[in-house]
Amino acid sequence: MKGQPAPELNIVQWFNTTTPLDLKSLRGKVVVLHTFQMLCPGCVQHGLPQTQKISRLFAAQDVVVIGIHTVFEHHAAMSPVSLEAFIHEYGLRFPIGVDRAGEGHAIPQTMAAYKLRGTPSLVLIDRQGIIRHHSIGAEDDMQIGAEIALLLAEKNSGQEAAQ
Amino acid sequence: MKGQPAPELNIVQWFNTTTPLDLKSLRGKVVVLHTFQMLCPGCVQHGLPQTQKISRLFAAQDVVVIGIHTVFEHHAAMSPVSLEAFIHEYGLRFPIGVDRAGEGHAIPQTMAAYKLRGTPSLVLIDRQGIIRHHSIGAEDDMQIGAEIALLLAEKNSGQEAAQ
Amino acid sequence: MKGQPAPELNIVQWFNTTTPLDLKSLRGKVVVLHTFQMLCPGCVQHGLPQTQKISRLFAAQDVVVIGIHTVFEHHAAMSPVSLEAFIHEYGLRFPIGVDRAGEGHAIPQTMAAYKLRGTPSLVLIDRQGIIRHHSIGAEDDMQIGAEIALLLAEKNSGQEAAQ
Amino acid sequence: MKGQPAPELNIVQWFNTTTPLDLKSLRGKVVVLHTFQMLCPGCVQHGLPQTQKISRLFAAQDVVVIGIHTVFEHHAAMSPVSLEAFIHEYGLRFPIGVDRAGEGHAIPQTMAAYKLRGTPSLVLIDRQGIIRHHSIGAEDDMQIGAEIALLLAEKNSGQEAAQ
Repeated sequence: MKGQPAPELNIVQWFNTTTPLDLKSLRGKVVVLHTFQMLCPGCVQHGLPQTQKISRLFAAQDVVVIGIHTVFEHHAAMSPVSLEAFIHEYGLRFPIGVDRAGEGHAIPQTMAAYKLRGTPSLVLIDRQGIIRHHSIGAEDDMQIGAEIALLLAEKNSGQEAAQ
Repeated sequence: MKGQPAPELNIVQWFNTTTPLDLKSLRGKVVVLHTFQMLCPGCVQHGLPQTQKISRLFAAQDVVVIGIHTVFEHHAAMSPVSLEAFIHEYGLRFPIGVDRAGEGHAIPQTMAAYKLRGTPSLVLIDRQGIIRHHSIGAEDDMQIGAEIALLLAEKNSGQEAAQ
Repeated sequence: MKGQPAPELNIVQWFNTTTPLDLKSLRGKVVVLHTFQMLCPGCVQHGLPQTQKISRLFAAQDVVVIGIHTVFEHHAAMSPVSLEAFIHEYGLRFPIGVDRAGEGHAIPQTMAAYKLRGTPSLVLIDRQGIIRHHSIGAEDDMQIGAEIALLLAEKNSGQEAAQ
Repeated sequence: MKGQPAPELNIVQWFNTTTPLDLKSLRGKVVVLHTFQMLCPGCVQHGLPQTQKISRLFAAQDVVVIGIHTVFEHHAAMSPVSLEAFIHEYGLRFPIGVDRAGEGHAIPQTMAAYKLRGTPSLVLIDRQGIIRHHSIGAEDDMQIGAEIALLLAEKNSGQEAAQ
C-alpha cells in the first residue's frame, strides 16, 4: 500500500472525540493510524504505549494520531462496551474508532481496505493523503520519531499553491 | 488477614482445569492465590506474568497456583466470554476461577471474604491453610520466590503425624 | 550554547577511526556529539546504547556520530587504556575521542568549550555548524530521532548556493 | 563443584569492609559469592544489580554477600584504582575482594580454585561450607531468591549439635 492514496476510514463508533474524524478533512496534516485489538498482547505492551507517546510528543504540531479497533477474532470478547472500559483503564487519550464489521467475513472493513494482516499495525499518511509507512508488529521509537518528523518537514503542497 | 485461616473460594466458573479446585482438598500444599481483573494494567503488565512465572518455577513442587478473576468494576466489560479470550491470547496456563458476584454490591464474594482492596493482589497460604502473605500491588520476584520457598520448607504437620 | 557555532573538538587520541575528526571538515553534515565517562552509570545504561542506535539508524544518511570521553573525575581510573577495553567489551563502533585534559583544573577542554555540566550529555550540530540541541541526562529515543530527522531535512546552504 | 567444600578465598585487597573476610569464619551462614569484572557488560547490567538486591533483601538474615573481582582479561584496564571508582559510581555496598593474580597465567587464583569459566558467575555456599549452586551467566531473581531461602531454612548442624 506504500505510495498509494490512503482509503477513507469506515468507523461505527468513536471514543475520545466529540466529532467523527475522516481523512479527507485532515489533508494537510500528517496522520498516524495505529490499528489494534484490546486483547492483543503486542498492542497492549508496545503498540498502544508507543502511539500514546507519539500523540504527546507531536501534540503541538501538524500530526493527528488515530487508533482503530480492528477486531478480527474473539469478536464477542472485544465489544465496544469492553473497549470503552479498556480505554479508560489504560488512560488512552487519542481518538479511537471502532472499525466497521466485515460483511460475511471476520476482517473489518477499514482493516481490509488497508490490506492489514493483523495487529498491531502502523500506517503513516503524509500531508497529501498518501500512505508512506505500512507495517505490522513492533516498531522502534527512534525510527518512527524520525519518519514522522520527515513527513512533517515536507511542505504542504496545498499551502504552497495558496502562497 | 495474615495468620488467619484462608476462607474457602467461591467460584462460578473455572478455566484451565477440568475439576473445580477448593482449598480444603489442597491442604498440605502451598497455595498461591493471584486475584486480578483482565482490564487492570498492573495485573497485565506485572501481576499475571509473575504468577505465570511462579507456576512454571515451582511446577514440580508442592505449590498450587490459582488465579481468581475478581471483577469489582466495569462488570459488563469483563464477562467470562471476554476473560476466556484474554486467557487464550495471553497464554495463561494456571487454573483461573471467576469469583462469584456480590449480592447487592460490586465486590465479588471471594474478594470480600479475603478483604482484598483491589487488583492485583497476592495471597500465600501455607500447608496448614493459614494465610501468610496478603498484599496489593506489585511484588518483587526475588522476595516472592524466597517467601514461597520458605513455606515449602515448612514441614507438613499432617505428614509428620502420619510418620 | 544553543544557536551558537559549535567550538572545534580538542582531542588527544581517537578510537574507531583511522583519521582524526574535526568539525570544520564535517560542515554540511548533521553531527551528533555524545559526551560520556566510562564509569558513569547513566552513560553505560542509557546514553551509549542510544548513541549506538543513532549511529546504526542514520548510518546511510548525512549524520556523523562522535563520542567524546570527557573525564572530569576519577581521572586515574578512566585512562585511555581502560577506555580501550571498555569500547571493546561494549562493542561500541562509532568514533570516540579522548578529550584533552584541562590545564590546572579537572574539566577537560572540549567539555569546557561546550559548557557541559556533566555526563551523559548530547549535542546536535546542524549542517551549518550551529549547535541546535545541548542537554545533560537521559534523552527520549523518539524525541531525538525526530530532532535529528528535522536537521537532516534542512537544506544544506552550501548545496543551495551550488544549485 | 556442586556438593564439594567451598575453597577458601584468596584476596589481595578488600573494599566495603574494614576486616578481611574468609569462609571459615562464616561457617553457619549462607554465603553468596558473585564474581565479576568491572568491564563485563553482563555483570554491570544484570549480575551486580541482582547481587545488590540480594544483599538488601536478606540483610537481616544469616546471609553474607561477597563480590569478587576476578579479572582474567584486560588486566591493565581493570586495576584496583579503576575498581574503586567503579564501586563508588555504581553505589555498590557489599564487601568486594580483588582476586589474587594467577602465577604465569591470566586466570586469578580464587576463580581457578572454583573452576569458574567467566563472568558473571554465582556461587551459593550452605551453612556447612558446601557449594550448592555454581553457575555462569544471568540468573533469574525468583529462582535465586527461592534457592537462598531454602539454604536459610536448612538447620545449622553446629546448632543442632549444641541442642
